[in-house]
Amino acid sequence: IERSLQAIVGGAGDGMSVSREAFRQTVGNTLERRLFYIPSFKIYRGVAGLYDYGPPGCAVKSNVLAFWRQHFVLEENMLEVDCPCVTPEVVLKASGHVDKFTDLMVKDVKTGTCYRADHLLKDFCNEKLQKDLTLTLEKAAELKHVLATLDDLSTDQLGAKIKEYGIVAPETKNGLSDPYPFNLMFQTSIGPSGLLPGYMRPETAQGIFVNFKDLYYYNGNKLPFAAAQIGQAFRNEISPRQGLLRVREFTLAEIEHFVDPEDKSHPKFIEVASLEFFMFPREQQMSGQSAQKLRLGDAVSKGTVNNETLGYFIGRVYLFLTSLGIDADRLRFRQHLANEMAHYAADCWDAEIECSYGWIECVGIADRSAYDLKAHSEKSKVDLVAHEKFSEPREVEKLVITPNKKELGMTFKGNQKAVVESLEAMNEEEALKMKAALEAKGEDEFYVCVLGKSVTIKDSMIKISKKKIVEHQRVFTPSVIEPSFGIGRIIYCLFEHSFYTRPSKAGDEQLNVFRFPPVVAPIKCTVFPLIQKPEYESVARLISKSLTAAGVSHRIDMTGTTIGKRYARTDELGVPFAITVDSQADVTIRERDSKDQVRVKIEEAASVIKEVVDGQRTWADVWSTFPHHATASADDE
Amino acid sequence: IERSLQAIVGGAGDGMSVSREAFRQTVGNTLERRLFYIPSFKIYRGVAGLYDYGPPGCAVKSNVLAFWRQHFVLEENMLEVDCPCVTPEVVLKASGHVDKFTDLMVKDVKTGTCYRADHLLKDFCNEKLQKDLTLTLEKAAELKHVLATLDDLSTDQLGAKIKEYGIVAPETKNGLSDPYPFNLMFQTSIGPSGLLPGYMRPETAQGIFVNFKDLYYYNGNKLPFAAAQIGQAFRNEISPRQGLLRVREFTLAEIEHFVDPEDKSHPKFIEVASLEFFMFPREQQMSGQSAQKLRLGDAVSKGTVNNETLGYFIGRVYLFLTSLGIDADRLRFRQHLANEMAHYAADCWDAEIECSYGWIECVGIADRSAYDLKAHSEKSKVDLVAHEKFSEPREVEKLVITPNKKELGMTFKGNQKAVVESLEAMNEEEALKMKAALEAKGEDEFYVCVLGKSVTIKDSMIKISKKKIVEHQRVFTPSVIEPSFGIGRIIYCLFEHSFYTRPSKAGDEQLNVFRFPPVVAPIKCTVFPLIQKPEYESVARLISKSLTAAGVSHRIDMTGTTIGKRYARTDELGVPFAITVDSQADVTIRERDSKDQVRVKIEEAASVIKEVVDGQRTWADVWSTFPHHATASADDE
Repeated sequence: IERSLQAIVGGAGDGMSVSREAFRQTVGNTLERRLFYIPSFKIYRGVAGLYDYGPPGCAVKSNVLAFWRQHFVLEENMLEVDCPCVTPEVVLKASGHVDKFTDLMVKDVKTGTCYRADHLLKDFCNEKLQKDLTLTLEKAAELKHVLATLDDLSTDQLGAKIKEYGIVAPETKNGLSDPYPFNLMFQTSIGPSGLLPGYMRPETAQGIFVNFKDLYYYNGNKLPFAAAQIGQAFRNEISPRQGLLRVREFTLAEIEHFVDPEDKSHPKFIEVASLEFFMFPREQQMSGQSAQKLRLGDAVSKGTVNNETLGYFIGRVYLFLTSLGIDADRLRFRQHLANEMAHYAADCWDAEIECSYGWIECVGIADRSAYDLKAHSEKSKVDLVAHEKFSEPREVEKLVITPNKKELGMTFKGNQKAVVESLEAMNEEEALKMKAALEAKGEDEFYVCVLGKSVTIKDSMIKISKKKIVEHQRVFTPSVIEPSFGIGRIIYCLFEHSFYTRPSKAGDEQLNVFRFPPVVAPIKCTVFPLIQKPEYESVARLISKSLTAAGVSHRIDMTGTTIGKRYARTDELGVPFAITVDSQADVTIRERDSKDQVRVKIEEAASVIKEVVDGQRTWADVWSTFPHHATASADDE
Repeated sequence: IERSLQAIVGGAGDGMSVSREAFRQTVGNTLERRLFYIPSFKIYRGVAGLYDYGPPGCAVKSNVLAFWRQHFVLEENMLEVDCPCVTPEVVLKASGHVDKFTDLMVKDVKTGTCYRADHLLKDFCNEKLQKDLTLTLEKAAELKHVLATLDDLSTDQLGAKIKEYGIVAPETKNGLSDPYPFNLMFQTSIGPSGLLPGYMRPETAQGIFVNFKDLYYYNGNKLPFAAAQIGQAFRNEISPRQGLLRVREFTLAEIEHFVDPEDKSHPKFIEVASLEFFMFPREQQMSGQSAQKLRLGDAVSKGTVNNETLGYFIGRVYLFLTSLGIDADRLRFRQHLANEMAHYAADCWDAEIECSYGWIECVGIADRSAYDLKAHSEKSKVDLVAHEKFSEPREVEKLVITPNKKELGMTFKGNQKAVVESLEAMNEEEALKMKAALEAKGEDEFYVCVLGKSVTIKDSMIKISKKKIVEHQRVFTPSVIEPSFGIGRIIYCLFEHSFYTRPSKAGDEQLNVFRFPPVVAPIKCTVFPLIQKPEYESVARLISKSLTAAGVSHRIDMTGTTIGKRYARTDELGVPFAITVDSQADVTIRERDSKDQVRVKIEEAASVIKEVVDGQRTWADVWSTFPHHATASADDE
């Protein structure tokens, strides 16, 4: 998941952001009060950017992960692996994280407090734009331009802007240091010697890449195939903001789909081609338009999306997120702009979900070409390649470059090695040009990069020829298509999208509800006796036992609180169904959002719940099958 | 999980350990070849003590964890939480890990290579005992005594033994440094300032303890309740040995059951009371006997096991492990000896599983009394306590000790504080004795610990009285009963217990089989066409689709390999069922261990598999319902 996109957040008008803020507060309070989240190590006053999932949050998380496994791993027969978080430096050197996984930081020159340089600049510009009434049109345009290009600024440019605008430390108003890069990986040391540096992994993908060879073999040396991993990842943020969206430890679920770069078609693309949803291609963004509904099949056939495999995963991600309960109208797939994308990437789309913080990148779906496998091949000297066996051997012409090392040695002495290597590295065009020159003039000028100068190559120093050889297979580095899911962000957005309030009957308070679909709901069902009465309680226990045997997570609520209050309590946890025991023959099953109630025999109660929870049966079907509960809604008793 | 028990490993005779070694090799080769495990970062030559789970291993692991959730969390309505791995120092200071979570280390004085001091001493003693034929009886007894008391040796004693025996570095034969403690936690730093030290958690339990207050509230301020957590834990081992059993990062599943220390009965104990299995109480160990089969109910009623709740969990752990496929005859519950147990623990039992490395501690089940909650209460100044409301207020007599600080100050000057605190800390018996003495003689001798001397307390310096007060509730720190599961160790032992070989029909090779029960099996079913034929392949794809829809993990094998080889391949992954497509109406379903085959209609195949896999139906039932496959076993075609 690319970090740069955080900048996209916000941008709504001031009034809008006030109501957003209020909504966020309401949801946040409910989530904390019901222990969906707990600030970690709270009794020690916590640590910024670390959160626990409390019981209902933890249940939602494991439901989301179980559904992810079903939807991706099982459905596509992916090879799931599980690698350690502790990673030796060499791996993250190869991946580029040791050198480039940084944010620019400035320090308060007196207190040493650290800030993200781009955050301070962004806050300054936003504040000026919103509150400074004396701002000239030119100045406003300049600040907007800074905001738009924030991610493109170099260290020096960022430092210059901070100086130019006189930005100081927010709390103390002290001056700030020049910006410098801070690596976001948690560093540690492996073993007792202190000589083997390691890091807590910043993503799970590298564990898959380094295992490519074994996984390819496991898959019968066939492409395409996908590997997957769910696990913790770590980023030592400079100053975490945005609550649950920007944390220092989080769960990633990543897929690395390995494919022949010459054939990125996908046999199951047809199954998602007719899906229509909001897409936000590069051109629309550049020309200031907004996202629009596109048919996925068209987006791929018109080349808006680079290839079928990438398109297939975009479609599958759409289905995944909406099945969880993400609102399709607040979900868009945004293509990376040229300046956001890594140089090696062929195409990249983010699933962005709109919440009170703005549009949040929750899934990144990137065609990373052969970059990762090549990087690890080079560093480890182990070939991470695939083979395509030809059905019949093919005769191909190959260029053969044979430097005469002895002669080159006599002429170039200590530089012989550099010259030889440069000659061997010539591409076909260069070599043929030299061959022609040598044949014509008997010598040629040749620029040796590492020496920084040209040398004269004589006819006797090299042989360049074309040779026909028979090839039995093609050897190539597979491309990688990577859908990468920030599970915590998806869950947070899901909480916001699922939350609504409704008035109590008395109208004196707003009741909170999470409209989780059963697959996500932390608890599927609550069981309670209408009143405290031993006969009802033993029926409740009986039903509870059947639910446990059926593997349906549930709670019994035996408290004497009014039935209305108990419903309100379970609605606030997003429990989709409640069984109220009010007789020794039948019970009432109530659905959370419609508040509709049906009468079901005690023996059937658990299996009815099991069926709707597993999706074998809809509530509409239950509603049309069983007698309706006649009395007025018990909600407000 | 206590570390000290590693010492128990081994002890078998020499011949025995050779065959164990060979068995371990065979299992290990199969596990690595089929990618159950992969040494992590293999292309970079790996890191000791870090392993990946490859596809089948990862599937086994997630099956074990899903079953754990069903068996413990769901069944007992536990509150599952999910806390970060990154933990600030203060938490692990309170828990004692910063100061005491250490192993003694020695260094090669020339190369700096690090060793665990106790390992070197143990190896030395074992080697001498096994190979030195000149050993006197006295010397042999001495070495055996050292082995038996290895875990009790202090730093100095260990150092002295190493000197006395002239133990040197194993590879270089260089001298060794004195032993010194090395903390086993991976250290890191939280945030950019470098001022907030943190560690990767060595266990998941602390995350639960610090949340006690919120969880107690969530549970309606009622005891008992249990919280649970599954997650990664980290130990920076000095020099990992024993392959997959001693690793630097591993998955723990921990339960913290909070209970009133005055009532450790358990309502569901009756459900496990009649279980009989191998138990190894303290007395049997001390008197050199071996483990014996006991009825759990008797063990609790006789007081061998401290209380019902502890007993209940022992029984549930037994059911959990044997359901996974652990052999009940190679499973024992061993009670901690007095010297193994933490001073605060009321009782502690380890589930030990016998494998080629000897008896391995896989689950620790400890009654940790109030230790953890008290430690965090003290450090955080947040009361982690429970309340028992009395149905009627109770009048109780309370002792009131009121030191006269002014008078004590005049007499004891700088020592006043120490004296006051010691007086206030007197228990009832001490205080009443002093009261009597003061009334009789007007003064009393009083020993002040921190001063290391007695002082004379005069009548005027203190008031001791009894006062009647009315109490509405009892406030107390709950006891914690902690079952802690080393998931990786359980899985490794399960692999050994599930592994067997059988001859191929030709008898020319041994075929490997894992007899995983369906709940554990990484893949539940393989589907293959008997021969490569489009009609069969489309039937295979149809069945595969139904299996996916039913959520049954499976593979299609379309290769043209002989059916016998394909069976051998799936047996080696422990796949319990195979569907062979050999017609367009019926298919053959084959069970792995019996090699029995039945004929089932194509439309029924997926649902039959689903039922046996989910445990709704036994294979015996399937065998008696469907026609048997008449031809000779296809296994060896």
